[in-house]
Amino acid sequence: MPLAAFLTDYGPASEHVGALHAVLARDAPGVERIDLAHDLPAGDIRFAALVLERTARLVPGAVVVAVVDPGVGTPRRGVAIGTKGGGALIGPDNGLLALAADSLEAKRAVALGAPGDGPATFHGRDVFAPVAARLVIGADLEQVGEPIDLSSLVRPDLPRPLVAEGSVTTRVAGIDRFGNVALHASGADLSAAALAPGEKIRIVVPEREATATLARVFGDVPEGELLLHIDSHGMAAIAANGASASELLGAVPDMPVQLRRGTSEN
Amino acid sequence: MPLAAFLTDYGPASEHVGALHAVLARDAPGVERIDLAHDLPAGDIRFAALVLERTARLVPGAVVVAVVDPGVGTPRRGVAIGTKGGGALIGPDNGLLALAADSLEAKRAVALGAPGDGPATFHGRDVFAPVAARLVIGADLEQVGEPIDLSSLVRPDLPRPLVAEGSVTTRVAGIDRFGNVALHASGADLSAAALAPGEKIRIVVPEREATATLARVFGDVPEGELLLHIDSHGMAAIAANGASASELLGAVPDMPVQLRRGTSEN
Amino acid sequence: MPLAAFLTDYGPASEHVGALHAVLARDAPGVERIDLAHDLPAGDIRFAALVLERTARLVPGAVVVAVVDPGVGTPRRGVAIGTKGGGALIGPDNGLLALAADSLEAKRAVALGAPGDGPATFHGRDVFAPVAARLVIGADLEQVGEPIDLSSLVRPDLPRPLVAEGSVTTRVAGIDRFGNVALHASGADLSAAALAPGEKIRIVVPEREATATLARVFGDVPEGELLLHIDSHGMAAIAANGASASELLGAVPDMPVQLRRGTSEN
Repeated sequence: MPLAAFLTDYGPASEHVGALHAVLARDAPGVERIDLAHDLPAGDIRFAALVLERTARLVPGAVVVAVVDPGVGTPRRGVAIGTKGGGALIGPDNGLLALAADSLEAKRAVALGAPGDGPATFHGRDVFAPVAARLVIGADLEQVGEPIDLSSLVRPDLPRPLVAEGSVTTRVAGIDRFGNVALHASGADLSAAALAPGEKIRIVVPEREATATLARVFGDVPEGELLLHIDSHGMAAIAANGASASELLGAVPDMPVQLRRGTSEN
Repeated sequence: MPLAAFLTDYGPASEHVGALHAVLARDAPGVERIDLAHDLPAGDIRFAALVLERTARLVPGAVVVAVVDPGVGTPRRGVAIGTKGGGALIGPDNGLLALAADSLEAKRAVALGAPGDGPATFHGRDVFAPVAARLVIGADLEQVGEPIDLSSLVRPDLPRPLVAEGSVTTRVAGIDRFGNVALHASGADLSAAALAPGEKIRIVVPEREATATLARVFGDVPEGELLLHIDSHGMAAIAANGASASELLGAVPDMPVQLRRGTSEN
Repeated sequence: MPLAAFLTDYGPASEHVGALHAVLARDAPGVERIDLAHDLPAGDIRFAALVLERTARLVPGAVVVAVVDPGVGTPRRGVAIGTKGGGALIGPDNGLLALAADSLEAKRAVALGAPGDGPATFHGRDVFAPVAARLVIGADLEQVGEPIDLSSLVRPDLPRPLVAEGSVTTRVAGIDRFGNVALHASGADLSAAALAPGEKIRIVVPEREATATLARVFGDVPEGELLLHIDSHGMAAIAANGASASELLGAVPDMPVQLRRGTSEN
């Protein structure tokens, strides 16, 4: 059953999101449509690449339009990538698509043409969604663009965690509306640092520090206290039971964070 | 015709909302999906219980996933409640579901299992949506959990209005983006206090007071003035014609409000 | 294939949007539904009329419910307008619908009845959506209201640009989340003023001025600099390459803006 999906940094329920749905409803009537995520941090390709990777995995076989595109109107190319089960990833070739392409076992890709003489800044509506409509009703990838080498796709510039015995140095990847602070580190990174469940972890951020417990769920720590856990996306994350970890830490995106075995001296 | 519906305090168009849709699109393809409401005040179970009750009533027979769940990761249980017309309410048993269950004439309920060894904090995606998909394509309630007594469901702790002749003492239930202030009181409460259409009502809130007219629609009062009316959800509410009642009163959720026959002395 | 569409100033994913979907899902099950736009500036009829015109054009033949309705609860009438291809525009007759009606070649219209004795302030749910459901499953326009003259529809009061050789005086129509500033002027207005691509344009706003280049895309100007261009909706707009034009100019909706050939003296 064909499925079209969208992920963008457009405002939620904005006319830009509406236009993507309208193009699909017009060009591929009757096809199911789904919003994977919108309103992502404007222009933050790295964060959106992570969200796309984990949400697109939920709907393998879907034709996904992804637009976080600070370079629209510059010569960056648009691409469509064929993924397993007849799916596709369509969007700007700026690093946004590469992680999802890996995860969905991409086998081939094409470069899309420019939008012609029309408006030049709304490729979601004018380039990507029309291509998605063609693909979701059965067009071949080669019919919508010129074949390119998968290895030529731009990859996102993700910060790698620095792992040592008893410590992981990383950065804030994102903050959600409940104040949970996701880090550019995984459960494997914590294990590699030999940090163990139940241990106290000293969290050092610029001009502040705090103590968390390495735990599984909020209920494992007293109310108001911090925990370091693996979040529902598999990322190491700092949360607080009944409070905002982001506020407690003064966290902002991309802020450096050091996790060290032990307790804060404050 | 089966219908799946969602109500949460997740951000609008966030990846959390997207994940619910993705699970349904994957496990119950072709089933209509509807967003009753998202972006509800984070963790405010009482307010969400009221919204769920009045929106779920619009789609009797739907399978509704509702998630406002500050206790996720604590031992609170998840439940699925069978409602009239083959519908269901699925979510945490924390008071969120009880009013809608009453309204939709719930007859039986089951407790859901924990999400197993996977991520522990996204029960919407990992527990509730998969159960909804099974129910919406025809599974029996007893196939998705262990029967429990309906009377064991947690009920929301709603403030009861204090009604006397000529006065109603209550609290702010919620404030919408137009500045309308909904109260934890109904038209029946105003009638019980013998407040009559056209009367002047003195509104007393902490450190401020004002005068409103008990009216039916905005146009019944001059521009910029307050009215006390029964809103489109059947709740007593304070609004202003062409202005924000919330700003005029300095209203915040849960603030005490006294309505008294008469005019403000200010 | 019938299609129902919505455009409102309700909050995104709010229960008000949910109620529109619920009424359609209940009264017209199986019909595709689409959100053209929500969360438009509250009560801004002029801006919403422009958005409705350009988004409704994407789905000719759709039955569109549009609600930006600061006069709800006053005697303003509700209308349904028949458009080409079997479509309709349904909403308050306050100027919101007239531009889209022109664009979709409206031929006839009816006035809708009041919502009766029920709640008086949620016409989207109680009047417009039920009418949309009837129309989208095949009712005739004359079955849902009393015929009225198309010429009696209220028109939006849009500011006309003042065009002279080398200058266009206009106002800010709207600002998007990327800081792009749309103006109440078109490419034709810029041409009529003999402003040519590549020219420097002095932008004068209250207490501030700046220089932009008349260009086609962001990449045509250096990073951080302003461009005047025709946006993806055909409106003259001020943008900045990699920055927020709105912040650079201190723009707010309806602010006067003068575009003059030349460079700022600052």
